[in-house]
Amino acid sequence: MLARPGLSIDLFGPRDLLESELESLPRHLAAAGSHLSIHHASDVIRQDQRPTDALRRGGGTSMACMLAHLSRGGALAGISSGNTGALMALSRRELGTVADIPRPAISTAIPTRGEGRCYLLDLGANVDVTAERLVDFARMGSVMARHIDGLASPRVALLNVGSEGTKGSASVREADAYLSGMPSLNYCGFVEGDGIFAGAADVVVCDGFVGNAVLKASEGLARMLIERVQSTFEAHWGSRLVGLLARPALRRLKNDLDPVRYNGASLLGLDGIVIKSHGGADATGFSYAVLRAVQEVSRGLPSQLALELGSRHERTQ
Amino acid sequence: MLARPGLSIDLFGPRDLLESELESLPRHLAAAGSHLSIHHASDVIRQDQRPTDALRRGGGTSMACMLAHLSRGGALAGISSGNTGALMALSRRELGTVADIPRPAISTAIPTRGEGRCYLLDLGANVDVTAERLVDFARMGSVMARHIDGLASPRVALLNVGSEGTKGSASVREADAYLSGMPSLNYCGFVEGDGIFAGAADVVVCDGFVGNAVLKASEGLARMLIERVQSTFEAHWGSRLVGLLARPALRRLKNDLDPVRYNGASLLGLDGIVIKSHGGADATGFSYAVLRAVQEVSRGLPSQLALELGSRHERTQ
Repeated sequence: MLARPGLSIDLFGPRDLLESELESLPRHLAAAGSHLSIHHASDVIRQDQRPTDALRRGGGTSMACMLAHLSRGGALAGISSGNTGALMALSRRELGTVADIPRPAISTAIPTRGEGRCYLLDLGANVDVTAERLVDFARMGSVMARHIDGLASPRVALLNVGSEGTKGSASVREADAYLSGMPSLNYCGFVEGDGIFAGAADVVVCDGFVGNAVLKASEGLARMLIERVQSTFEAHWGSRLVGLLARPALRRLKNDLDPVRYNGASLLGLDGIVIKSHGGADATGFSYAVLRAVQEVSRGLPSQLALELGSRHERTQ
Repeated sequence: MLARPGLSIDLFGPRDLLESELESLPRHLAAAGSHLSIHHASDVIRQDQRPTDALRRGGGTSMACMLAHLSRGGALAGISSGNTGALMALSRRELGTVADIPRPAISTAIPTRGEGRCYLLDLGANVDVTAERLVDFARMGSVMARHIDGLASPRVALLNVGSEGTKGSASVREADAYLSGMPSLNYCGFVEGDGIFAGAADVVVCDGFVGNAVLKASEGLARMLIERVQSTFEAHWGSRLVGLLARPALRRLKNDLDPVRYNGASLLGLDGIVIKSHGGADATGFSYAVLRAVQEVSRGLPSQLALELGSRHERTQ
């Protein structure tokens, strides 16, 4: 934030709590306090609270107050590390969607081979989806990769259990047929799970159950592998050599693989910018979510989505 | 195979091809030839062939001949690295299922934190499943973990997008209700994707689309991470030091993480033992699939499944 002096941040939550957090900032960050404003909200949404319950009773919570502020134009983007389902439900109500998108999706970039990245969506907002919604996700992902990452013609693929057209669920095969007939998209067919990390596409589309399982399994596997790398080298060389040689390389590697580097999932299709931070993110991780929001603001992502998805001749329904 | 002199193997395929492969075996493996018999089959099933087509026209193929041989009692287990869908369809027709299981599942063990392993199923045989089929998978996975891995009371979990009961698809929530009422199972509720590798359960159940996506994404991620480990160390230390120190550790690590170690997926629920080897497995990888078959034979897995799943009082339908 200190690197972006033009940025001012509104914090929502219990005032006492936020004030004591700000007071405990290390001295070199104290100057940041002048960019922060506290907005009191007495209540919070619990992690186990249903979205429907959040809609009914969540009015006085920090999340709802933040979104109401965003909706009034008090801010250009909202960021939360709270309950994802509640965040999606409240965001839809406060902000609405662009281009009649009925189901916004959650998307994040994941690292791929050769220093690339790939947007995976949906990551859990939509557990069961029709072919039409998969098509929406494909088009939204393509707009995002074009405008945020500057790709001229992002490769879009559907996640499936095989690369042949005869495989997969009915909705995936139907979405494949729609997407194959859309000249404005660089649709490259099906990819299997290993294609995501192989860099086979810039946007990979699936339903929210599959995307959530793949993303979380990948995070779990990355954690396990990093632990094993560490213990393998320690066992092999003993601690002294590790101290001299391996630690800096391990630190770099951890940094390289840390999912936190890509923290900040976009709620895509809303008429506004909302970013979901990982619940377990530390300060560095959270700063990536803030940067993600800044990028989407500077590229005017919702307007781009409205413009490109509003052209109904390519809509499936 | 040389380590198991009692093992004899029937090979199915074009005779010329198999003979020339056997002739080119390195000298120290030539003795293995006496344990191998060739059965001529002129045709093969292609990777892109539909299961229905394999059922109609696959009669003279190596896969069908192998399964007919197995069904006649000519062998105790069958192993194939061919078309998975065709293997499942032909196996069901040739062998039938145990305990009226309508939908066999594919399962493989994956490594978890702390040197553990976890069976994930289904891995692609059943793209859309009802709650009843998820319950079958849970029960079959539990029997397998008990009899093959010797676990007294395997922890069984359902893969979901959240650990709260309010989340997930209708079939997953319904299966959760069924499983919670089964005292013979050590059912421990929902796990999210990261729970698989964290070792949160010994058996993780999901539909075949999700399982396939998770497994293949994990294989792709593991490959990417191993490459990055290698290049990080090379970039950091230069090639000479790597040559001296890092290579043996990297080799060990690769070995440790290589999905091939766990090669050999069980087609679970058949009235017979059929193992699917990874299409890209090398000789070592394929030998793990053979060992998996030997284990299932020695524990009489299909009989155990018939016995335990046949008790209809716990069947959901």
